[in-house]
Amino acid sequence: MALRTPLTRAARRATSTATAAPALSVYSAQWRRGNATVAPVTQSTGSKKGTAIVFMNMGGPSTTDEVGSFLSRLFADADLIPLGRLQNYIGPLIARRRTPKIQKQYAEIGGGSPIRKWSEHQAAEMCKMLDQTSPDTAPHKPYVAFRYADPLTEDMYKQLLADGYGGGNGGRAVAFTQYPQYSCSTTGSSLNELWKWRTRLEGKRGTGEVESKGAINWSVIDRWPAHPGLVEAFAELIEKKLAEYPAERRDNVILLFSAHSLPMSVVNRGDPYPAEVAATVYAVMQRLGMKYKYRLVWQSQVGPQPWLGAQTSDTVKNLMKKGQTDMLLIPIAFTSDHIETLYELDKEVIGEDAEGHEGVKRVDSLNGSPTFIKALADLAKSHLHSGEACSPQMILRCPGCTSERCLAQKEFFARQSGQDKQEAAAA
Amino acid sequence: MALRTPLTRAARRATSTATAAPALSVYSAQWRRGNATVAPVTQSTGSKKGTAIVFMNMGGPSTTDEVGSFLSRLFADADLIPLGRLQNYIGPLIARRRTPKIQKQYAEIGGGSPIRKWSEHQAAEMCKMLDQTSPDTAPHKPYVAFRYADPLTEDMYKQLLADGYGGGNGGRAVAFTQYPQYSCSTTGSSLNELWKWRTRLEGKRGTGEVESKGAINWSVIDRWPAHPGLVEAFAELIEKKLAEYPAERRDNVILLFSAHSLPMSVVNRGDPYPAEVAATVYAVMQRLGMKYKYRLVWQSQVGPQPWLGAQTSDTVKNLMKKGQTDMLLIPIAFTSDHIETLYELDKEVIGEDAEGHEGVKRVDSLNGSPTFIKALADLAKSHLHSGEACSPQMILRCPGCTSERCLAQKEFFARQSGQDKQEAAAA
Repeated sequence: MALRTPLTRAARRATSTATAAPALSVYSAQWRRGNATVAPVTQSTGSKKGTAIVFMNMGGPSTTDEVGSFLSRLFADADLIPLGRLQNYIGPLIARRRTPKIQKQYAEIGGGSPIRKWSEHQAAEMCKMLDQTSPDTAPHKPYVAFRYADPLTEDMYKQLLADGYGGGNGGRAVAFTQYPQYSCSTTGSSLNELWKWRTRLEGKRGTGEVESKGAINWSVIDRWPAHPGLVEAFAELIEKKLAEYPAERRDNVILLFSAHSLPMSVVNRGDPYPAEVAATVYAVMQRLGMKYKYRLVWQSQVGPQPWLGAQTSDTVKNLMKKGQTDMLLIPIAFTSDHIETLYELDKEVIGEDAEGHEGVKRVDSLNGSPTFIKALADLAKSHLHSGEACSPQMILRCPGCTSERCLAQKEFFARQSGQDKQEAAAA
Repeated sequence: MALRTPLTRAARRATSTATAAPALSVYSAQWRRGNATVAPVTQSTGSKKGTAIVFMNMGGPSTTDEVGSFLSRLFADADLIPLGRLQNYIGPLIARRRTPKIQKQYAEIGGGSPIRKWSEHQAAEMCKMLDQTSPDTAPHKPYVAFRYADPLTEDMYKQLLADGYGGGNGGRAVAFTQYPQYSCSTTGSSLNELWKWRTRLEGKRGTGEVESKGAINWSVIDRWPAHPGLVEAFAELIEKKLAEYPAERRDNVILLFSAHSLPMSVVNRGDPYPAEVAATVYAVMQRLGMKYKYRLVWQSQVGPQPWLGAQTSDTVKNLMKKGQTDMLLIPIAFTSDHIETLYELDKEVIGEDAEGHEGVKRVDSLNGSPTFIKALADLAKSHLHSGEACSPQMILRCPGCTSERCLAQKEFFARQSGQDKQEAAAA
């Protein structure tokens, strides 16, 4: 019971300023709503160092040599792939068995994942933009923290300390998830990892043995499924790819929004991801005037347990059989190319399931889209001026959650909310 | 293959006019997008009889005596409860076994379902409003067609014929689903039933042996999950109920949006319902400024097969255990009270799972909400002037669908699109 009170207080704090929001134009009100932080509270950064912006993502092996370590970290993560009590035995086994196959896949897409390149590009460009649009929180320094590949969260945290954040110096850092839709398997796992390294690397301030003042003051951009800038970036890329179809076929192309699936055990625990992915899809369809046939489908199922469907692969095969061969695949839950787009969608789904039919195409990933990078900067700016540690929604654990790590992590970030406000008040 | 062409053509037709849409204000554009028909094509009703507006819903027994026949129809419907090849044997068995228990439940909520009363009220009020706002399609005559209770679709169709529609006289009718989010189990089932009775009751015109001119000219409002009027009506009722909490607890109430669940076999076939329910939830949360913690949860699971979760009942029990006892249940996929709200949510979830805790409340159903009825009138008006037979999305069968009935039904409604245009051109 003792742990519950701060969460409750923090949630109240996180919402109590909403009524003070000034009148906004319809567009900007809508734009702001995408980021679940609503209250424009101006605050000090609490440091002349400016603001560290940390892009969190799963990452991917940059070379085929890194596939083994990547997979062993991935299958060890019970937040992502729950294997039960035998996780530590079965995880490495599956990782070792899958390594040669996955190495071949990475070899076929150019020898590695481009996710690091894109993440570093997006973070750097966004920070430059933010220096212009949010001078009071400048300079903004970009960092990348991956969950299963370099740069790992641990290394990013050490770099932050080396750069003069925390370790008694304080300073403000924003953990900016690069998963637009929140899942405990993805953003939740990255936050658990961040919280773990904070505890280990910030000494007594991190463990709570002494007051945390002087440690890094964290806040989180935890979800942004229907941010209008994100929606616009997706819509632009969809329209660009649709333009490749002959005009007389274009209006009849079926849009297949494809997202990474989840095991039903995670869905049934109350993970918010499926509903948030659906929110993105609906927002994009609204932006497209609802004028296309579409479905939300799910890819990348692994193992024998039931996962959420309909599966992307089955869907494409079924539609091919019915003679509906004009289909546009839209990766809707990742922000850059990765093996799920370059290999699974391009080679397996289009190459094999659709037998390379010219009617089946894939929309480009967000990657270097300027519209997307502008959206990131807008999101970060809104967050920095909101005075919120995270969205109210992040504080609510999944109803079926039994993870103590998850509870402690949410406790931590909820408390940061208080710290933000105190430092802002003191400034 | 022969059957595919009309669907393809109809889909093109249904979307090809979208570019001709005039500039609209942001608000009205958004309002219109909720109804997936986008092209404002003015057209003749093709008849001085005006327009029949048929509210389609599952219905419910108005008295406990009707429970038996209601359940036997419900369990016979493979679109709703797929029981496989033994449907005709197992269905009646389950219905008979469940009848006494369900009769008791209806007895406890006042002796019957109020769905007929509310449907008739909503349809009548909406038609009055529509007579004012859409005089060129007036008079508008309200009808109700239930799937499993009186008035059955068959009886509604006979009434239409008796009232001078069809049977050689032609006339325009709109099948207006009262499920805001489309599922093959609900709206799909009602449309299959409507198409069946059209075939049986319109003689040779219905079977296609002679030209269909003179039969009723149908169009369909098939989904409206994020219509701003619907969203506003939900938000108003949520805010009204939140006001019953003491101010200091209000911001911390957990909103639990509860929708009827689906078997995973239906979800995995590609049913669009879960994603559309999520779209409603997200739109309502945006309207509420994203300032509450919330989850989308699923109720009314029946039988041993896996259904989509997290379950409403488990969620409430789990949150109670965690001490989070301020919860607001929001029935998000029905438009009036019924056994799922009055018995399942009020008596089982609140009464038993939450042991009647005063912190656990339910938002009123839409029922007689004037905001809701205005939304219905706006939806119908947009549809009547769109020249569209249905949304582009309705024409796309579920990727895993193998139902010939479903194919034929979609064929039928897609063809009506052409008839609309021909009659409009001839007018």
